[in-house]
Amino acid sequence: MSGKLWIVGLGPGDAAMQTPQATEALAQATDLVGYFPYVDRVAQAPGQVRHASDNREELDRARLALTLASQGRAVAVVSSGDAGVFAMASAVFEAIDQGDPAWRELDVEVVAGISAMFAAAARIGAFLGHDFCAISLSDNLKPWKLVLRRLRAAAETGLVMALYNPLSRARPWQLSEAFGVLRESLPPHTPVVFATAVSRPEEQIHVFDLAAADPARADMRTLVMVGTAATRRIERPGRSPWVYTPRFAEDAASS
Amino acid sequence: MSGKLWIVGLGPGDAAMQTPQATEALAQATDLVGYFPYVDRVAQAPGQVRHASDNREELDRARLALTLASQGRAVAVVSSGDAGVFAMASAVFEAIDQGDPAWRELDVEVVAGISAMFAAAARIGAFLGHDFCAISLSDNLKPWKLVLRRLRAAAETGLVMALYNPLSRARPWQLSEAFGVLRESLPPHTPVVFATAVSRPEEQIHVFDLAAADPARADMRTLVMVGTAATRRIERPGRSPWVYTPRFAEDAASS
Repeated sequence: MSGKLWIVGLGPGDAAMQTPQATEALAQATDLVGYFPYVDRVAQAPGQVRHASDNREELDRARLALTLASQGRAVAVVSSGDAGVFAMASAVFEAIDQGDPAWRELDVEVVAGISAMFAAAARIGAFLGHDFCAISLSDNLKPWKLVLRRLRAAAETGLVMALYNPLSRARPWQLSEAFGVLRESLPPHTPVVFATAVSRPEEQIHVFDLAAADPARADMRTLVMVGTAATRRIERPGRSPWVYTPRFAEDAASS
Repeated sequence: MSGKLWIVGLGPGDAAMQTPQATEALAQATDLVGYFPYVDRVAQAPGQVRHASDNREELDRARLALTLASQGRAVAVVSSGDAGVFAMASAVFEAIDQGDPAWRELDVEVVAGISAMFAAAARIGAFLGHDFCAISLSDNLKPWKLVLRRLRAAAETGLVMALYNPLSRARPWQLSEAFGVLRESLPPHTPVVFATAVSRPEEQIHVFDLAAADPARADMRTLVMVGTAATRRIERPGRSPWVYTPRFAEDAASS
């Protein structure tokens, strides 16, 4: 098989945060495949065919990309952020695992990108300065009980959290229930970040105390990050505070 | 204060994985501050002053950078990977938090980068395809008991793990003890990745079963990643397998 498949992380949105490796792959691709707002982010190259599709069709999109590559095309599947973080890379490998054995002979290259959580943490200081985790709150692909077990474990062991897909129209109550669980073990002053469209013109980043964090301020595009008992604000006169998690930690449970 | 301070993530090593934002900051800097192998990675610009220092001097290095910036210099503190992940960003904000109140008026900008775990996951497929965590095994800054509690919680709730600083000359036994704890709750076939110098000419990436993973194969520069019971290999004739973690998960504990 002579086709090529790149799975490309575009970064959070600002072209200055897209790697040269990603830019080069996009320039070489004969076909772009992806969720339409991400495909729209890529400058049109002459002769390049664009296959934009709706959300929640990851496996179909992966199979289309693999089929095109197996026909000899040079295909770039595009994701926002990093291609391997709640994005298209795992869907493509699932499709390969379950699909045509010939797909295993394709030249597949995953191109890493700047994830939303790294970009958001950088904008406000060093929020992920210590051990951390990334959890999707969506229960489309896993039981909600498991999400809650993970949130409890992260809060009880002091991991900073990046919460992806915090809610949707079909499950508007999830972030609220998640905050309820986190409030059982984290102090009321724990910083919570709501970050939307980081690095893009419409960027919005707000920091609240966990006690006052209002789930209604988030939508499906919001990344929510929750600190630990040790996460600190640095107040600045006339400007928004920096927020960081120190590198050192004590073991509250064993003291 | 007219000085400027960038805290720059250089990415894992390959120049094609360094963002244009990072390249621009490095070009504008009058002074580079960092651990010497990272400073060495930056091309020398005319007139730029290089302040390279040894490892484990993060706070001194942060204070030097802040002092230079407060004297009006344009200072870039450089880290490998992402600046906010077990790197210099949190040290700089700790130094500001504890230091001269005038430092709070400086123009500080964190420039995100491609972390080692994203680069390593991309090289072998989609290892971080589901909920995951990043934990430093170093007990320089936190009690070893707390590290073990976090590992147990991650394994028991099915988070993929990226383990930074897996051992050092002063603590050669830590990775071995960590694997012992993980083997209590993860199946023997769980994939474990040892990744060193990802994207650089001397790159080495190897995948083992947890049961057979030998801590002696890691050194202080190795990133170790541990999958979940669901993480899968895709065997390929004549080539190394792809490894990915599916997007969906069942709740083993409640079934």
